[in-house]
Amino acid sequence: MIMSRNAMIGQSGGPTAAINASLAGAICRAFEQGFDHVYGMQNGIMGLLEKKIIDLDAFKDPDKLDTLKKTPAMYLGSCRYKLPDYTKDETPYVKTFEILEQLGITDFFYIGGNDSMDTVMKLSAYGRLKGKALNIIGIPKTIDNDLMGTDHTPGFGSAAKFVATELVEITYDSRIYKVPSVTIVEIMGRNAGWLTAAAVLARKASQGSPDLIYLPERPFDKGQFVTDIKAVLEKKNNVIVAVSEGIRDKDGHFMDADSGMTDVFGHAIHSGTGKILENLVQKEIGCKVRSIELNVLQRAGGHLASATDLDEAFNIAKAAVDTALMNETEKMMVYVRQDHPYTITYEARDVRDIANLEKKIPLEWITEDGHDVTAEMIAYLEPLIEGEVNLTYKDGLPVYLDITHLI
Amino acid sequence: MIMSRNAMIGQSGGPTAAINASLAGAICRAFEQGFDHVYGMQNGIMGLLEKKIIDLDAFKDPDKLDTLKKTPAMYLGSCRYKLPDYTKDETPYVKTFEILEQLGITDFFYIGGNDSMDTVMKLSAYGRLKGKALNIIGIPKTIDNDLMGTDHTPGFGSAAKFVATELVEITYDSRIYKVPSVTIVEIMGRNAGWLTAAAVLARKASQGSPDLIYLPERPFDKGQFVTDIKAVLEKKNNVIVAVSEGIRDKDGHFMDADSGMTDVFGHAIHSGTGKILENLVQKEIGCKVRSIELNVLQRAGGHLASATDLDEAFNIAKAAVDTALMNETEKMMVYVRQDHPYTITYEARDVRDIANLEKKIPLEWITEDGHDVTAEMIAYLEPLIEGEVNLTYKDGLPVYLDITHLI
Repeated sequence: MIMSRNAMIGQSGGPTAAINASLAGAICRAFEQGFDHVYGMQNGIMGLLEKKIIDLDAFKDPDKLDTLKKTPAMYLGSCRYKLPDYTKDETPYVKTFEILEQLGITDFFYIGGNDSMDTVMKLSAYGRLKGKALNIIGIPKTIDNDLMGTDHTPGFGSAAKFVATELVEITYDSRIYKVPSVTIVEIMGRNAGWLTAAAVLARKASQGSPDLIYLPERPFDKGQFVTDIKAVLEKKNNVIVAVSEGIRDKDGHFMDADSGMTDVFGHAIHSGTGKILENLVQKEIGCKVRSIELNVLQRAGGHLASATDLDEAFNIAKAAVDTALMNETEKMMVYVRQDHPYTITYEARDVRDIANLEKKIPLEWITEDGHDVTAEMIAYLEPLIEGEVNLTYKDGLPVYLDITHLI
Repeated sequence: MIMSRNAMIGQSGGPTAAINASLAGAICRAFEQGFDHVYGMQNGIMGLLEKKIIDLDAFKDPDKLDTLKKTPAMYLGSCRYKLPDYTKDETPYVKTFEILEQLGITDFFYIGGNDSMDTVMKLSAYGRLKGKALNIIGIPKTIDNDLMGTDHTPGFGSAAKFVATELVEITYDSRIYKVPSVTIVEIMGRNAGWLTAAAVLARKASQGSPDLIYLPERPFDKGQFVTDIKAVLEKKNNVIVAVSEGIRDKDGHFMDADSGMTDVFGHAIHSGTGKILENLVQKEIGCKVRSIELNVLQRAGGHLASATDLDEAFNIAKAAVDTALMNETEKMMVYVRQDHPYTITYEARDVRDIANLEKKIPLEWITEDGHDVTAEMIAYLEPLIEGEVNLTYKDGLPVYLDITHLI
């Protein structure tokens, strides 16, 4: 008897522009390889536990698959859920495997970041312990680019392209007036500054901005910051600053931990790093100043996705299916890079070497003065934002896959 | 002797994605009509007074002209300067005409919003009084869409396309989690809610959001706002709210006039409308809430410009040159619209009927409940965001015209 082969795919963590490209890649390869069924869990492992399962048969249609590839955020929905230690609470493990066995699932794919790889690791370990014949493979994604073991992460290139494009347009916007002004752009990344560093890619296209870049990997000093800005203002009118939301002082205190602001009842008010620096410039320099928080726009900007990113995200998921077909488990797929010319190959790594770790920017890729990045960093970033995605537009807006089922 | 014909063009006020398309249209038509020279004033009328003048001969190159058309913000730079009453201070008038006469300028074009039309009006009136043979024509632009006499304004369609696209992507981003959440998107427009209303265009593409839209034309009531959100939360998890920065209460007080927040020294802190509403939802409902300020991204988003907008902005400026060639003066060009099918023709109107006035949304285009717009409003907006601009990308970023001269 030939065993039937069935896949279960989930998405978890925060959205990116490329996570559906990985879903599309996994579906595509599974059907190419003759899988009988490909299922999706709605809202990750939490949805699976509630038996919220979507049959993904409809994506045998290549047009629908292509639209899925280009649709930002998550078609299957997400969750934020950490599996308990199975030695303390086995319940969700028992239930998960029960549901998977009922459906005859042979291969399990989980697309996500650090926390999702924790899920992959724990489920794999439990499966191994219980002698389950289930291949469990993690497929990375995160705009933060902070996963170990992989050259970069799916989703990062598109977010970087969004950040760099906006930095160009913000520079054009601010340069029109002949008055000194400071524009502070706050970019996501709590502990790792990769996405903020990508602001540097705007420099050629904007004839010189951003002028200053501050990353969480180096201690932030308010006095030095004001000095840096004054130095730029001596040379030009419009200073553009890219700053990570996660910058902190030499004692490790986040800049936005205590804004010094209170509401009418005297309660402390949380304010973004950019806003706090805006107030600082206002007080210390007194020129025109504005802060801009790129906010969630930078993480699911499908209309500015990097074609390189979507293609790689698609292909790494195809490679994940091939890896599972070799009965590999307890793995996360990674990008292995070669330069001259830039090429990516896809490999499987032990997920235990990756989960719950964070990859930060090497300090030698930050300039001595602490407010810029080096040529090595630029060379690392450049290929990742290459290529535009040929989106379909209808009534003036991008056409994405209907996600009514998530409402 | 055949008189030589020379044009002077300026840009003024805030940036848009379409104001360089108008500059390109004026240059293109002037050369087509055999003008000897086309000059630009750097940083508007202020730059002209300092004789900062750019020869625009280079734009006879069609490729360069095409890139200019697609470049956001202002190639010539801007200023914010209000001419004094000439009966009180004639100096800038005398100097302006002196410089224009030295260069043999016959036709003067000023691209801008309300304040710029004030400049057109005052210069025209002074010229008429002094019997000057100078044709002065205003070319409108503003993302606010608040100019009288024209169906809509150049620049508005592109800003509207940016707002609607981001509303779609923000909805996709927020819908992935199965927890109640409120996302408040703050959109530009101090007195007129046109751009905020354009958020409605996202509704079809996002399967239903934004759910609530608040405009400055209707008094804003905090209690009703909380009630409205609670009502939506009964039907769905993710509430998306589009709100104008300029909403105010029934007594006319802006929501952001007093944030109720103070810094460590007890000084009042200015906070955006979105942030204030975020704090309100936090306090009154207590669910996950986030505010997003689209900020300057919405006004010079060249990468998301509306092709309809850029084409119309180009053509209205061509029509301005033709109007000047009929020795018309003291005019602003307007869009005259016909529907079924949507077509725009270009006409000249007396600038005195336009300058310093503001066109707001007709109250009958806002729904009875005060938190949505009508089908008439949607039909008005739809054609304005149609069509995508075929941008050139290099190294993953849009190619815009070099503006080093403005640094």
